[in-house]
Amino acid sequence: MSSNSVGIVSPETFRFDQALVFASGRSLPNFELVVETYGELNSDKSNAVLICHALSGNHHAAGFHHKDERKAGWWDAYIGPGKPIDTDQFFVVSLNNLGGCHGSTGPNTINPETGKPWGPDFPTPRVRDWVQSQKILMDRLGIEQWAAVIGGSLGGMQAMRWALDYPDKLRHCIVIASSLKLTAQNIAFNEIARRAIVSDYNFKDGRYLEHQLIPKQGLALARMVGHVTYLSDDAMADKFGRDLHNGSFQQGEESKVEFQVQSYLRYQGDAFSESFDANTYILMTKSLDYFDLAREYNDDPVSAFKNARCGFMVFSFTSDWRFAPQRSREIVDALVAARKSVSYAEIESKYGHDAFLLPNQRYQDAFRAYMNRVAKQEQS
Amino acid sequence: MSSNSVGIVSPETFRFDQALVFASGRSLPNFELVVETYGELNSDKSNAVLICHALSGNHHAAGFHHKDERKAGWWDAYIGPGKPIDTDQFFVVSLNNLGGCHGSTGPNTINPETGKPWGPDFPTPRVRDWVQSQKILMDRLGIEQWAAVIGGSLGGMQAMRWALDYPDKLRHCIVIASSLKLTAQNIAFNEIARRAIVSDYNFKDGRYLEHQLIPKQGLALARMVGHVTYLSDDAMADKFGRDLHNGSFQQGEESKVEFQVQSYLRYQGDAFSESFDANTYILMTKSLDYFDLAREYNDDPVSAFKNARCGFMVFSFTSDWRFAPQRSREIVDALVAARKSVSYAEIESKYGHDAFLLPNQRYQDAFRAYMNRVAKQEQS
Repeated sequence: MSSNSVGIVSPETFRFDQALVFASGRSLPNFELVVETYGELNSDKSNAVLICHALSGNHHAAGFHHKDERKAGWWDAYIGPGKPIDTDQFFVVSLNNLGGCHGSTGPNTINPETGKPWGPDFPTPRVRDWVQSQKILMDRLGIEQWAAVIGGSLGGMQAMRWALDYPDKLRHCIVIASSLKLTAQNIAFNEIARRAIVSDYNFKDGRYLEHQLIPKQGLALARMVGHVTYLSDDAMADKFGRDLHNGSFQQGEESKVEFQVQSYLRYQGDAFSESFDANTYILMTKSLDYFDLAREYNDDPVSAFKNARCGFMVFSFTSDWRFAPQRSREIVDALVAARKSVSYAEIESKYGHDAFLLPNQRYQDAFRAYMNRVAKQEQS
Repeated sequence: MSSNSVGIVSPETFRFDQALVFASGRSLPNFELVVETYGELNSDKSNAVLICHALSGNHHAAGFHHKDERKAGWWDAYIGPGKPIDTDQFFVVSLNNLGGCHGSTGPNTINPETGKPWGPDFPTPRVRDWVQSQKILMDRLGIEQWAAVIGGSLGGMQAMRWALDYPDKLRHCIVIASSLKLTAQNIAFNEIARRAIVSDYNFKDGRYLEHQLIPKQGLALARMVGHVTYLSDDAMADKFGRDLHNGSFQQGEESKVEFQVQSYLRYQGDAFSESFDANTYILMTKSLDYFDLAREYNDDPVSAFKNARCGFMVFSFTSDWRFAPQRSREIVDALVAARKSVSYAEIESKYGHDAFLLPNQRYQDAFRAYMNRVAKQEQS
């Protein structure tokens, strides 16, 4: 474990014995959120930062759960002592969102009304519902204002929603590889992923847990679609080219894997299908599809951002074609037109959408510089 | 039926009582090819043009099978009297490739050795095997040299292979939206499509016909992946945007279709799954993956093209990201370096890979101009 790791961390479960009403009108009678924190909350509670996760993320953003854990948390490259989100300066809060499958109340937890897993009956949250639940968590933690709310992709949508729904509750909003709303192409890829899952013979209308089944093949396919589209063409070419799995072609049945890229995809899909819940995947992609920041502002993002009071930092990555730089520029343009303070960095990267998770010098430098500004403001 | 249609056409089945040995070493004891022709073969048999089809194509490239047929052949915009491939000037030959599912010998025809459908036992053809079978058809038709061999996508790969394998047998090679070999990303999308099919509960290891089953859901998914990736982001945005199916959001089960793009994709997938054979889809995508024009020329496309004797016309489309203009430029660069006669047109279009099938003024004009050159050369 390197010296700039947050080290061994333990998630904590917060129980909320209060109903939570979703934007859809449906509600949870009570709920639990699993949370990790890194760093120390300062005496005036002004150094708290909220991390919002994306489609397949969870609360485990940094460090290790035990010393033999093979992989660190999903954003370990960016959270830790001396890292852009510097845990020597910030108290970092990272939760598993409602509807997730890593401990927070979701499709794979028990519905108190039936005594069975929620499964497909779990209400689909909108991004604003997550923000509402994060606000309740904030109150429980005794934090009055976030120094920053930070998120990539679907997480960036949550960060923007925070700026609109609770303008006094955050000083900075960091939106990475995100969008004001999905394109038709993005919705189409999400639709394919969902169809792959619901078409799986073991899906059983979403009640697979009650049947002791898992729609593994569908979930693996969904992940494969995500994986290919979240990478760039160039990154795949560099990583695999047309390298053959066994060195030469075989005349074979479909089961034979011939190119390296095939075996890699199958491995990734299989691994994911054993660690993620299918109903959660459906629900997360629907939340992505539904998000449309300016919908209730006459489709005008400028008026949507009018009430925001925080500073904004927006990042995009050149080869990201699912959340293309153009989508980030739309956010920046709207913020500028709404006369908000906004910085924008378009980072050169060949790693597509995944770039927001990966080490990259310019990204790290710009991120660190902005977070230093956030920290200074907090001290002043 | 408009005056520039080839009108009512009837496919013809050619039977070949001879074994065909594939590049893999496997063979067919005999085979049939279903063929359509448009226009008249001239007295010196110098005006014949071969059309090579792509992944989901077949022999029915132009006209109608009966007067109530709703849709014309798949390339009707380009084949007919006065059209770029002018049937007043050319005798156009269009076949269903071996392994296809529209009448030619393939997985859904009977394996004479077993008396059952070939199914997954049908040998996977390489592009060169198709070209070999097309050459046998050519001999049967008494044609000694094609005025041109023409194909888009996988069809363009066949056209290039003709130029290498039978350099004296064609005067022109027209390669549209194609590639010297697939990228890793393209192989990955094909892999996803195949996994979707083989994961279908009804696939039964490819022996679904023997079980009176069809892996409809898998095939529909495969088609959806193709459909989304063969279109451009912009074209999807223009066609669907984020339009809602019922005008407003519903809190609903997964089965509810909320965006227009979802219902469109499901319709396309379902329609395709009722008209196409799953084993053929697997086999066609594998042929695409395997194709690598320069593999046995030390990966040097320049030396691959050295023996070609025909003139080349190469087309690409700006928004085509699965067979990007860069791939066509690689073909053109190799042809130039090999000192071949080559014309290249990069056509502005927002319709992605599908652009090669759709009406487009500049494409039609350039195509017509080139075909006029082909026709003049033939008269001289």
